[in-house]
Amino acid sequence: MAHSPDSSLHLIADLDHCRGLGDIALIETSLREAAQAARATLLDVRLHHFGPGMGVTGVALLAESHISIHTWPEHGIAAVDLFVCGREADAEAGLETICRHLQGKVRRKQAVRRLGLENPTA
Amino acid sequence: MAHSPDSSLHLIADLDHCRGLGDIALIETSLREAAQAARATLLDVRLHHFGPGMGVTGVALLAESHISIHTWPEHGIAAVDLFVCGREADAEAGLETICRHLQGKVRRKQAVRRLGLENPTA
Repeated sequence: MAHSPDSSLHLIADLDHCRGLGDIALIETSLREAAQAARATLLDVRLHHFGPGMGVTGVALLAESHISIHTWPEHGIAAVDLFVCGREADAEAGLETICRHLQGKVRRKQAVRRLGLENPTA
Repeated sequence: MAHSPDSSLHLIADLDHCRGLGDIALIETSLREAAQAARATLLDVRLHHFGPGMGVTGVALLAESHISIHTWPEHGIAAVDLFVCGREADAEAGLETICRHLQGKVRRKQAVRRLGLENPTA
């Protein structure tokens, strides 16, 4: 990896009351802008649409690790994770960006310190 | 997504004493075989090598969500997560497969129940 593992935060969030969860372009935009908000370097974005009325899986590969969004439009829910290394990274800002794009609310959130740092916070 | 969110496990693990962490082919094999061991359906694998002596980021997109591996060969450590939906999926078997390929040991592990189920376990 390009960044030190000494400061690695893995932010995991389940969102509900979301909109646009079957819109693959919206998921892509959410990933790209979340990477930017998190001050991360985007390497690649991969997306898969499961078909009409169904959800989308999207992953952004970062120099700092990854961001993923998995959606269930039939339930209005999305599973998000933002794993970012480096002291400059801001996973929370990335999550806020995703929530804003999907017009969703965080139902459950957990921040896991990875690798070099102490165990789970928040 | 193709699978119900009612049974979604997100298994997060930090591995140490690993070998082959700069070998992009090994990381790809680890992801592919982990998906198979987890009884998941592989959609795509994306990899990025950070350069000579540096690590690799790899993500497998699954019909059941994703598996990621991020490596730091200079420290012998790898950060892994396996997020799989569906009652048939076996994230632990996927993690065992990755550990076997990387000859690593689990230093820290956390299983997070996502979406429809109750809060974090173990």
